[in-house]
Amino acid sequence: MLVVGERLNSTRKSVAPAIKNRDTEFVKKEASAQAEAGAAYIDCNAATVGKDAEPEALCWLVETVQSVVDLPCALDSPNAAAIEAALQVHRGTALINSITAESSKYDDLARLAAESGSKVIALAMGDDGIPSTAEDRLKVARELVANLNRAGVAIEDIFVDPLVFPVSSDPENGRRVMQVIEQIREEYPGVHTIAGISNVSHGLPKRFLLNQAFTVLCMGAGLDAAIIDPLDERLMSLIIATRALLGQDEFCMDYISAARADKLIV
Amino acid sequence: MLVVGERLNSTRKSVAPAIKNRDTEFVKKEASAQAEAGAAYIDCNAATVGKDAEPEALCWLVETVQSVVDLPCALDSPNAAAIEAALQVHRGTALINSITAESSKYDDLARLAAESGSKVIALAMGDDGIPSTAEDRLKVARELVANLNRAGVAIEDIFVDPLVFPVSSDPENGRRVMQVIEQIREEYPGVHTIAGISNVSHGLPKRFLLNQAFTVLCMGAGLDAAIIDPLDERLMSLIIATRALLGQDEFCMDYISAARADKLIV
Repeated sequence: MLVVGERLNSTRKSVAPAIKNRDTEFVKKEASAQAEAGAAYIDCNAATVGKDAEPEALCWLVETVQSVVDLPCALDSPNAAAIEAALQVHRGTALINSITAESSKYDDLARLAAESGSKVIALAMGDDGIPSTAEDRLKVARELVANLNRAGVAIEDIFVDPLVFPVSSDPENGRRVMQVIEQIREEYPGVHTIAGISNVSHGLPKRFLLNQAFTVLCMGAGLDAAIIDPLDERLMSLIIATRALLGQDEFCMDYISAARADKLIV
Repeated sequence: MLVVGERLNSTRKSVAPAIKNRDTEFVKKEASAQAEAGAAYIDCNAATVGKDAEPEALCWLVETVQSVVDLPCALDSPNAAAIEAALQVHRGTALINSITAESSKYDDLARLAAESGSKVIALAMGDDGIPSTAEDRLKVARELVANLNRAGVAIEDIFVDPLVFPVSSDPENGRRVMQVIEQIREEYPGVHTIAGISNVSHGLPKRFLLNQAFTVLCMGAGLDAAIIDPLDERLMSLIIATRALLGQDEFCMDYISAARADKLIV
């Protein structure tokens, strides 16, 4: 289970001013804490500064993060100019977050992904917006996988995101995500699946609890990457337990090591 | 999700002497606490007193439990004589825990279930012991469902138990259970599935954490009943969250009510 640390996102209240003011210490602290907690990628989103200022802000964010942690970043923007700029300063293999099947944006982002050899998150949405059924999202996902692969992105570098929406607005929103994950795993064994878990709990109390349970449910359906808050120790403990339960942790060694290091919060 | 409270089981260290000494207060306290915490059935197991003494001990246990809580019991014994005696004193519709396809025991227990109109847990094992693969357990489960139904037990009164074994002894033990649950749900929409969750964590540290994650995983696969410790507040909170995430809680009302009553432990 690959964890993308979601905390350095400018849509979060404390992060927007830190980016605007180029608060290096804040960013370093958040990056280090997420790396320490087990993130494999640090998500970097500077979108709230506005489209014109975003390339420079995202470059600063990525460079600041990589000045303290030895991890790749998830370059989080729908803006090809920002992604292109960030790829110039990024060290290692980046994860582009994200590409959609929207024709106005697809070509530029697909070219950037292929040319840079980056990994890429493919959101199951296109020119008609967000499909409401699992079947329609699968159609868009299949199209994206085929086109990205044809454009030169390796199958194992594609992370399909089924799009997570709150269960408070539609009780089927959770199941729908699980169905897309299961189906993608079955149809494309090499393709990864990823989800921005916390959207599921929007508008409900005790969101951490829903995020924890939904991560476990999605792992059961086959999810192998998640955009989450790695500082939620309960969530990280449940992920370690779930890997053992799904036979993904040989001899339960990671689980037992985490228990011995007193890292498992019950 | 139907919760069978597992605490009054004579294989637990504190319970065996309480049953042997007919400690009424201990039993009443355990029964009340489990009912209060949300159990729908109270499991009653007196097997450690020995086969000859078991019928009387089980009757005492059931009567003591039902003197304080208005809930049915799960009559937990492989011993037909103990089940038969307990059914005489039990009020309401009991859950017989359990029947197997073993020919030496099947007929007596099936007759008791059908005659008393009880619900029954059908363990996926027969004369050849416990099948190691999911497919072989499904074969036994199909045979049990067909035979019990023919004997007069209604389809919706049958709870198939896929048999939970520790992931510490075989990393596939978790997946196997999930596969049997999924398949039974698909083949027999009316039949329930139930699992004794805590076996999965045997031999590993921080067992509560594994039990919590496994309950969520099995619910994702379709489990609709579980034999668990309802006094684990984290587990009960995750169950409430999981029901909301799976679309089993209309408008998330149960979830929101539990949050308002401060019953959700994150």
